[in-house]
Amino acid sequence: MSARTDTRPLFIPVVLGTVRQGRMSEHVARFVHAELAKRPGVETELVDIRELKLSNTDEGGGARDVRFTETVARADALVLVVPEYNHGYPGLLKHALDTNLKEYIHKAVGVCGVSAGPFGGTRVIENLLPVLRELGLVTVFWDGNFSSVQKAFDAEGNLTDAAYVRRLDKFFRELVWMAKVLRHGREHVALEGG
Amino acid sequence: MSARTDTRPLFIPVVLGTVRQGRMSEHVARFVHAELAKRPGVETELVDIRELKLSNTDEGGGARDVRFTETVARADALVLVVPEYNHGYPGLLKHALDTNLKEYIHKAVGVCGVSAGPFGGTRVIENLLPVLRELGLVTVFWDGNFSSVQKAFDAEGNLTDAAYVRRLDKFFRELVWMAKVLRHGREHVALEGG
Amino acid sequence: MSARTDTRPLFIPVVLGTVRQGRMSEHVARFVHAELAKRPGVETELVDIRELKLSNTDEGGGARDVRFTETVARADALVLVVPEYNHGYPGLLKHALDTNLKEYIHKAVGVCGVSAGPFGGTRVIENLLPVLRELGLVTVFWDGNFSSVQKAFDAEGNLTDAAYVRRLDKFFRELVWMAKVLRHGREHVALEGG
Amino acid sequence: MSARTDTRPLFIPVVLGTVRQGRMSEHVARFVHAELAKRPGVETELVDIRELKLSNTDEGGGARDVRFTETVARADALVLVVPEYNHGYPGLLKHALDTNLKEYIHKAVGVCGVSAGPFGGTRVIENLLPVLRELGLVTVFWDGNFSSVQKAFDAEGNLTDAAYVRRLDKFFRELVWMAKVLRHGREHVALEGG
Repeated sequence: MSARTDTRPLFIPVVLGTVRQGRMSEHVARFVHAELAKRPGVETELVDIRELKLSNTDEGGGARDVRFTETVARADALVLVVPEYNHGYPGLLKHALDTNLKEYIHKAVGVCGVSAGPFGGTRVIENLLPVLRELGLVTVFWDGNFSSVQKAFDAEGNLTDAAYVRRLDKFFRELVWMAKVLRHGREHVALEGG
Repeated sequence: MSARTDTRPLFIPVVLGTVRQGRMSEHVARFVHAELAKRPGVETELVDIRELKLSNTDEGGGARDVRFTETVARADALVLVVPEYNHGYPGLLKHALDTNLKEYIHKAVGVCGVSAGPFGGTRVIENLLPVLRELGLVTVFWDGNFSSVQKAFDAEGNLTDAAYVRRLDKFFRELVWMAKVLRHGREHVALEGG
Repeated sequence: MSARTDTRPLFIPVVLGTVRQGRMSEHVARFVHAELAKRPGVETELVDIRELKLSNTDEGGGARDVRFTETVARADALVLVVPEYNHGYPGLLKHALDTNLKEYIHKAVGVCGVSAGPFGGTRVIENLLPVLRELGLVTVFWDGNFSSVQKAFDAEGNLTDAAYVRRLDKFFRELVWMAKVLRHGREHVALEGG
Repeated sequence: MSARTDTRPLFIPVVLGTVRQGRMSEHVARFVHAELAKRPGVETELVDIRELKLSNTDEGGGARDVRFTETVARADALVLVVPEYNHGYPGLLKHALDTNLKEYIHKAVGVCGVSAGPFGGTRVIENLLPVLRELGLVTVFWDGNFSSVQKAFDAEGNLTDAAYVRRLDKFFRELVWMAKVLRHGREHVALEGG
């Protein structure tokens, strides 16, 4: 079966990457998840790192939440919704990401950066790139950028700026393309030599 | 034609990314090029940025060397051989890379870092990641790392440590896989929606 | 003489870091230079990398423009005005920066990122950080961020948004502080042991 | 009192930045702490992030361990001992670092990277740079690099390669210089204008 004619849905979970009290990124994650769910051929679910059962007395595989690992193992791609904390990624998100390893290999990832200020979480996205690569993920070259996030949603979590819908569409288009292409690769293209 | 049965060779140029007088990276690039040329199903050529005709009174597309652009346009993947200068990339390599744009999209790239010290050019590789992503390239998650490069080759440019051959094999294996998978994607998988 | 009572002016050149035809960063650099020149206790000059006489057949010290090296040697701090090209720094700026070495040590640097898009050149600033550190410079933790630069200045190069004046003031305040403190250190504090 | 004649000791805690079971970085941190303690004019203590009482249901100031905050507030500089996890920093270290803010401003920091492989934790150091800058810390331009850490210490945690002592000396020399210079700045140099 070629990628062209492969009609199986892609599974693309959305990871809400902070446990902070009062986190605005939850609005972003819910919105991204809802938009992604509308996309034909995509199945998604919202993974809230606040609800993971990760150990705090170990790091890496020893700190694992089995269900999270299974979700990543089943995924064709991930969307990470990530607030920018001091120009880097939230510690507890990295703690969660580090618990898996081979489950990520040759899958796609897209990042939605979130910031209180005007720069769309660009800095946390740059900071994540070497980590995502080392995990074996392919980071697509479109991002979601949510600037001044406290103004982008109202108190009920509804979007105040409809332009985000159109921007997300381009981001999803690239992510879905890469997810399909890599699934084809994982299933049909052998690693040769070595 | 699926990727599995696609027998067309991949074209993977090796870019020597410095013009420095006395550059040791030339040994690395010649070695990498020779090893890659042995690989069945791969065509390669050595691109020396010293020989490009780039303008120095403009940047981006206006500084372009037409033959370099054509080489990139034809490529399925690139190997960059990059010495680490002050923990960053050589300026003239970036100047060259910035002259192309759509020619890179959805192609694979692997990086061979070169350093005089013991750390295998790891820092220049990290520094390149955001640039390569923005160009639309997919950086594979194996690297070539050439530490203490003045000892890794003798005066004739012959390798003194055979372990590099085996390490390169793993790197090429990943690069060729990604090059094949992305070629399949470019040719057979549509960007949907948007 | 303690830093407190040191009344000698600080010398802080502003480096325009691109040779691109039609570069909007020139407006930024002229504005930043003019504002800095108003500051009591600061001497400045505009260094345009387009006017440097750097070799293109070597990199590092061998490519040096002697006058640029002298300017850096005399400086107490630098301001870099840097457009973001493919999320990285302009190649010819890096080519210029790499020509000096000990001239940078224990001096301050501030970066003004420039972008056509909305994110204030944040990504090029992040990309420069490891390079500036390795050069021995201390990058202050305020930046200049010039977003949508084609709208921030009119055709004559006059600022259209006065908020930049206030923002630059905070940036300069931090840069001047660090420049003073490091000058005191260079002149009065010994490296001990070793 | 000028920095030259200031005889008060510097307080430079060493932070062991992982909770991983079987962590080899503990050997590094104990060694670095012991060497630093020998240095005249320096007071130090070992801060083990495993022993901090940080909340896991919040991030930032809300997750704070009061004693850790007090330690950072008293410090003139920090040494971070940081293993490289997937080319990034340990999540729980970032979680700890993010709990403080103004306590870091205008202080020095040095990083000891630790890796199982041959590259001395260089990648995690690069990954930390933007975070440390945003916190207001000045990262010195010497690092500690502990490669193949499982071979660098024996089962009792004793160093097997004496060359590390000499290398650490250069690192400390730079860190102590910067700590002194910045203390002078914090105490004697005003932020002007704005």
